[in-house]
Amino acid sequence: MNMPKNDKQNLAMVTCTAPVNIAVIKYWGKRDEDLILPINSSLSVTLHQDQLRTITTAACSRSFQQDRIWLNGKEEDISNPRLQSCLQEIRRFARKRRNTGDSTSDVSCVSHKVHICSVNNFPTAAGLASSASGYACLVYTLSQLFGVESEQLSAVARQGSGSACRSLYGGFVQWKLGQRSDGKDSLAEQVECESYWPELRILILVVSAEQKSVGSTSGMHTSVETSKLLKYRADVVVPTRMEEMIRVIRQRDFPAFGELTMKDSNQFHAICLDTYPPIFYLNNISHQIISLVHRYNQYYGETRVAYTFDAGPNAVIYTLPDHLPEFVQLVCHFFPPDVSGEEFVRGLPVRSANLSEELKRDINMDPMPKGIRYIISTEAGPGPCVVKDPNHHLLGADGLPKKSAISDEP
Amino acid sequence: MNMPKNDKQNLAMVTCTAPVNIAVIKYWGKRDEDLILPINSSLSVTLHQDQLRTITTAACSRSFQQDRIWLNGKEEDISNPRLQSCLQEIRRFARKRRNTGDSTSDVSCVSHKVHICSVNNFPTAAGLASSASGYACLVYTLSQLFGVESEQLSAVARQGSGSACRSLYGGFVQWKLGQRSDGKDSLAEQVECESYWPELRILILVVSAEQKSVGSTSGMHTSVETSKLLKYRADVVVPTRMEEMIRVIRQRDFPAFGELTMKDSNQFHAICLDTYPPIFYLNNISHQIISLVHRYNQYYGETRVAYTFDAGPNAVIYTLPDHLPEFVQLVCHFFPPDVSGEEFVRGLPVRSANLSEELKRDINMDPMPKGIRYIISTEAGPGPCVVKDPNHHLLGADGLPKKSAISDEP
Repeated sequence: MNMPKNDKQNLAMVTCTAPVNIAVIKYWGKRDEDLILPINSSLSVTLHQDQLRTITTAACSRSFQQDRIWLNGKEEDISNPRLQSCLQEIRRFARKRRNTGDSTSDVSCVSHKVHICSVNNFPTAAGLASSASGYACLVYTLSQLFGVESEQLSAVARQGSGSACRSLYGGFVQWKLGQRSDGKDSLAEQVECESYWPELRILILVVSAEQKSVGSTSGMHTSVETSKLLKYRADVVVPTRMEEMIRVIRQRDFPAFGELTMKDSNQFHAICLDTYPPIFYLNNISHQIISLVHRYNQYYGETRVAYTFDAGPNAVIYTLPDHLPEFVQLVCHFFPPDVSGEEFVRGLPVRSANLSEELKRDINMDPMPKGIRYIISTEAGPGPCVVKDPNHHLLGADGLPKKSAISDEP
Repeated sequence: MNMPKNDKQNLAMVTCTAPVNIAVIKYWGKRDEDLILPINSSLSVTLHQDQLRTITTAACSRSFQQDRIWLNGKEEDISNPRLQSCLQEIRRFARKRRNTGDSTSDVSCVSHKVHICSVNNFPTAAGLASSASGYACLVYTLSQLFGVESEQLSAVARQGSGSACRSLYGGFVQWKLGQRSDGKDSLAEQVECESYWPELRILILVVSAEQKSVGSTSGMHTSVETSKLLKYRADVVVPTRMEEMIRVIRQRDFPAFGELTMKDSNQFHAICLDTYPPIFYLNNISHQIISLVHRYNQYYGETRVAYTFDAGPNAVIYTLPDHLPEFVQLVCHFFPPDVSGEEFVRGLPVRSANLSEELKRDINMDPMPKGIRYIISTEAGPGPCVVKDPNHHLLGADGLPKKSAISDEP
């Protein structure tokens, strides 16, 4: 256990990081709103934490008066029901462990109050959902603090935010629907680790959006209530797609993986449109990115690039190293960046490429200047990690956020 | 029979008009591409011909060398398979009639070649599908020329363009799916005539579109091939909706009619998104119109206005006289027209209205100047009509288009 203690204050402190994940078979719709049990299984790729991560420090001390939490530098209300679910559940696990006497760590900690401090290394303004990495990091960090080891950890994270359960593992992760009404079998499970398919490349195209989208919690609630197609998707379409997705990942079959990823993204947005009133997450820029991908693939007669969109207009692109430079160049050509601005391609370096005139002509789209704000270049990565260097703690010896803990933006 | 003849040339000539129809339960997907048999029943409102119509003159003469057709002033290839289907079918009916001897009209006509001239009174650039009114008018005019009376006429028009069968009747019209593989029971049928619900008002919001949409024939073909949701829609969702739509029309229940109309439009566009590659008919302006309608209805706590969209970005709005002026004013406010341009509201007069500041504030949308090019204000109307005044013939005594027959634009 990595649990540096300050004996004077009886302070135990742990810092961990957790990744973002992007679903390729989408989760949309709950069968139980309190326990956050889904109506269908889903599958995601865990993104590398070098580019996108949440970092969380949790500390407990006899001297703390109450549970407190700071998110991105601002203290938040710890009475939030989803935060409370996670805290209560992880303490329940810790107590069970203490009672069975199989813990080697400081078991008194569970009866103390906790201070939690968490920051993301990506701006909220980028429109990337931070709840998955956030709740995964919270639950993982508390499990380390309390010395809890359990295959049920993902079920705890799930009660913070459904998709957070998938961020507890690296690589390719499925969230199994489960059958039980108490949700104990609605767990994440690793399909393959991140090194299984090391060639896979991922781009996040951060799109300029004028409007705020409907939140995913209320959106999926309205879909369950009103969409006539959602139940059919969940009961009939997704089970087959889950099997197929696992098979094509194991075979590292990019064209099949890409096509199924695009189809499932499109079906999720179709369900949003079949919702009443309809929900639109894709804007004109998203539509243009979709067109660009299909025209690019059609030009080469094979699926070289695939898109997926979550509850917002940003595109996540999957591709392979051979096609990455040309596709990024194509994005720069059809969505010319603001030259005076910051770096357009961030994260893993992408080498430059020349575009043939024939390709540009064949794509035949009107350029949309500044339609894409920037690109984050990344790959699949591991699950949550413990940060050993105490300099990275976000809380000081006094149990309060360090001045530097406002943000982890690079 | 209205069949003015020029005995010198043995020329028989008939002129008719036919209406546009707008589906409220959408037709999308064929089970037989040649016979144009649909995978689900559909239901439409026939628009009034004072605003939107096709006018067609058909003539036959012993002296004509070949079948010829002129559309909107330009001669087109009569060998088009769908034109040929209609011509062959209507001649088959005419011959059958002649052989059974129950025709009182000039039965020799059927063995002569025909000249057909057809124009729409609405610009193709408006993006309104003209194939429904066009094929309905063609088939109706030929039936008048050949003295054919048959309940199967709609099956002939159907073979030109599926939705054309519904333009053979006024008011509220269903196109029954049918069960037979020869399509003889896949017919249009009037649910109620146009005077049954005289209060219903209809607006067409002609949207500025930068791109051409995927044609509906190839679009629905791709949907049938690739959408996992379409069969469920056709087999399970639509049958219930057809019954409900007929019931709410008979009850003149506007809120229920409006809500079901919007839901079915949204589901059709959801199916387009679930198609691979996905089809987008709605653009940002369409999305904004959808938002405006929902916010307007929400403001009043009832469905006062409803939208429906076909295979393009133009909105068709259904409402009642009490709400029409305010809604039109709201459209003018949030889609400020090009002041230097032509008339913004065309067709049936709409009186002006004042918008309350509270309503404008509550709608809370950014205005999109010139997003809507113009509005056509209309209502439900009758089916095809024979034009008795020979001055309206589009063909001259020589059997060729008159100079004026380039367009019927008002």
